[in-house]
Amino acid sequence: MGKVLLGPSTQIYPMPVLLIGANVDGKPNFMTAAWGGIANGEPPMISVAIRPHRYTHKGIMDNSTFSVNIPSVDLVKEADYCGIASGAKANKAEVCKFNIFYGKLGTAPLIEQCPINLECKLVETVKLNSHSLFIGQVEETHISESCLTDGKPDVKKINPLIFADEPARLYHAFGKVVGKGFSTGLELKKGK
Amino acid sequence: MGKVLLGPSTQIYPMPVLLIGANVDGKPNFMTAAWGGIANGEPPMISVAIRPHRYTHKGIMDNSTFSVNIPSVDLVKEADYCGIASGAKANKAEVCKFNIFYGKLGTAPLIEQCPINLECKLVETVKLNSHSLFIGQVEETHISESCLTDGKPDVKKINPLIFADEPARLYHAFGKVVGKGFSTGLELKKGK
Repeated sequence: MGKVLLGPSTQIYPMPVLLIGANVDGKPNFMTAAWGGIANGEPPMISVAIRPHRYTHKGIMDNSTFSVNIPSVDLVKEADYCGIASGAKANKAEVCKFNIFYGKLGTAPLIEQCPINLECKLVETVKLNSHSLFIGQVEETHISESCLTDGKPDVKKINPLIFADEPARLYHAFGKVVGKGFSTGLELKKGK
Repeated sequence: MGKVLLGPSTQIYPMPVLLIGANVDGKPNFMTAAWGGIANGEPPMISVAIRPHRYTHKGIMDNSTFSVNIPSVDLVKEADYCGIASGAKANKAEVCKFNIFYGKLGTAPLIEQCPINLECKLVETVKLNSHSLFIGQVEETHISESCLTDGKPDVKKINPLIFADEPARLYHAFGKVVGKGFSTGLELKKGK
């Protein structure tokens, strides 16, 4: 199988679609971030990379809190909009008709329409080059009741967005199940 | 829409499936990580969270290099196996019949069968609680020639795995396209 060199790049598939919320000057603002993931298990922590000039960056620095909201496929228009508009010029929560609520942290705005909302307390800010990598400890998880099956989160009901840079910066839905974690690989472990 | 509290958690959808490679005592080893993402744009950097007791952790610390290999759906069995076996007990590259090669960094083992391989130089180690968050600067990207369309990476050909914790730790394929980045949200920006 021939390989081709692309130079240094951020070719990671899949990327999540995260609506990062922060109060800026006392008002809720949201930006879309595909550059983030889980950073620690116990306690649960999330990392997200944000450029310093972003409006949300200021809100996170000011309050030391932020939220991570997972939009469903139904919210693709709103999720994309929050990535291309700036909170300095538009009230994105209003344009998107988001119902905002606050949880235990008080300053991390949460979007009711998003099936999952994580309240994060900023614990580390790693200043990299173009981006700050914010690491937030998850203090509370809110999930829409309609996305539970037998009391557990159900990805089919959450119906999250997936982002892929190439070839055309497209949003995708989840596709078919192709294996089961900590199970599909067992036959290799047993030497079968 | 009613919300239910789940407490602190790492409910992020989707998670990637990354085969993290490192030489340990001079031999290539791989572990599966779903906890990682993009950390910086210029220069490109990737973060990945790994528990200190993992064999791969030692290799990354020893060499200050690691690789990120993106498996396709065809490799689900191997990807899952690399998450449940330990390099201390098994030669995972051999069990999986991976063809290993090295690029410019010399000590970051790459898997030929994976459509995308990133060579990373360790630039930051953030010691969190249960995990170390390794931040690697991507020095080179290798892509299988068969996964290009008109010279660009094509996610349909890469056919990456997606992981979701709930409800049953399942691997998924990418599903249908539901929107276009920096485009689908424009009508909200224009006030339509």
